[in-house]
Amino acid sequence: MEKTTLGPQALLYPMPAALIGAQVDGKPNYMTAAWCAIAALKPPSVAVAIRRSRYTLKGVREQGTFSVNVPSSTMAKEADYCGLYSGKNRDKSRLFTAFYGELKTAPLITECPLNLECKAIHFLDLGSHTLVAGEIMQTYISGDCLTDGNVDPGRIDPLIFISGASKYHRLGDEIAPAFAIGKD
Amino acid sequence: MEKTTLGPQALLYPMPAALIGAQVDGKPNYMTAAWCAIAALKPPSVAVAIRRSRYTLKGVREQGTFSVNVPSSTMAKEADYCGLYSGKNRDKSRLFTAFYGELKTAPLITECPLNLECKAIHFLDLGSHTLVAGEIMQTYISGDCLTDGNVDPGRIDPLIFISGASKYHRLGDEIAPAFAIGKD
Repeated sequence: MEKTTLGPQALLYPMPAALIGAQVDGKPNYMTAAWCAIAALKPPSVAVAIRRSRYTLKGVREQGTFSVNVPSSTMAKEADYCGLYSGKNRDKSRLFTAFYGELKTAPLITECPLNLECKAIHFLDLGSHTLVAGEIMQTYISGDCLTDGNVDPGRIDPLIFISGASKYHRLGDEIAPAFAIGKD
Repeated sequence: MEKTTLGPQALLYPMPAALIGAQVDGKPNYMTAAWCAIAALKPPSVAVAIRRSRYTLKGVREQGTFSVNVPSSTMAKEADYCGLYSGKNRDKSRLFTAFYGELKTAPLITECPLNLECKAIHFLDLGSHTLVAGEIMQTYISGDCLTDGNVDPGRIDPLIFISGASKYHRLGDEIAPAFAIGKD
């Protein structure tokens, strides 16, 4: 298969469109982060790349806490808004219904089906962005996204960001069970 | 909306099913990493969480290079195999057709439509996993995944991993353009 070089590009598929919540200047603020992943199993940890000039990063540094909220596909407009506009210029504190957990200072988004409440552990400067590694202290799920007590990704219906083309997508068809199809 | 707590969980939606390539003991080896994200724009960087006992991590540490390869949905079986079995016990060097770029020691997977050739920059220990941050030195795309010279995510048809349910999925329908729908 013939390959074409594109130069160094920040491309990966798929990406989430997670909403990062932080308390900044005494109010909840939210930004959209496609550059976000789980970072460890024990302790459960997450890593989020945040542009160094971001208003949200100020709050994460000051409070030492943040949230990662997974929006459903019906929240594309709100997620896009939180990526386009900074909390420096727009008050996003009332865009969602915030709730707080054990850490007290990480605003979590009620409307998002899945929420991770995190304590910031490391700040790794990588040039344009700071990679924030955080320990997940609690996980919240909306009751209607459980089936027989288990997390039901189909009901979460997560919003997906596709870079390069800059589009939001829904999750598509199931192909195969993981940790199974490769067993031969 | 009523919320249920699940305790600290390594859950995020969606996740990639990236194939991480590294030269280990003189041979190419590949592991599947769902915990992988872009980490910075300038310089273009990536972060991958690798379990500390992983054979691949040995190669990344020794060579200081690795690759991130995005499989298409037709490669679910190969991706699953690379997640299930360690290179300590199975020789995965001939599973794919490897090619090498400027770094010389990072095996890239010809069959994967998108390939990032990376230099390891930081190793952040986070308990069970080491978060490897790498600078993307070159990006390769299969010629048939370009439309009018632009990356075409539909043709890449990326494999998606859904944790919790442990399933592979395809990308679903486009919902809306990003950096646009939120402008009001």
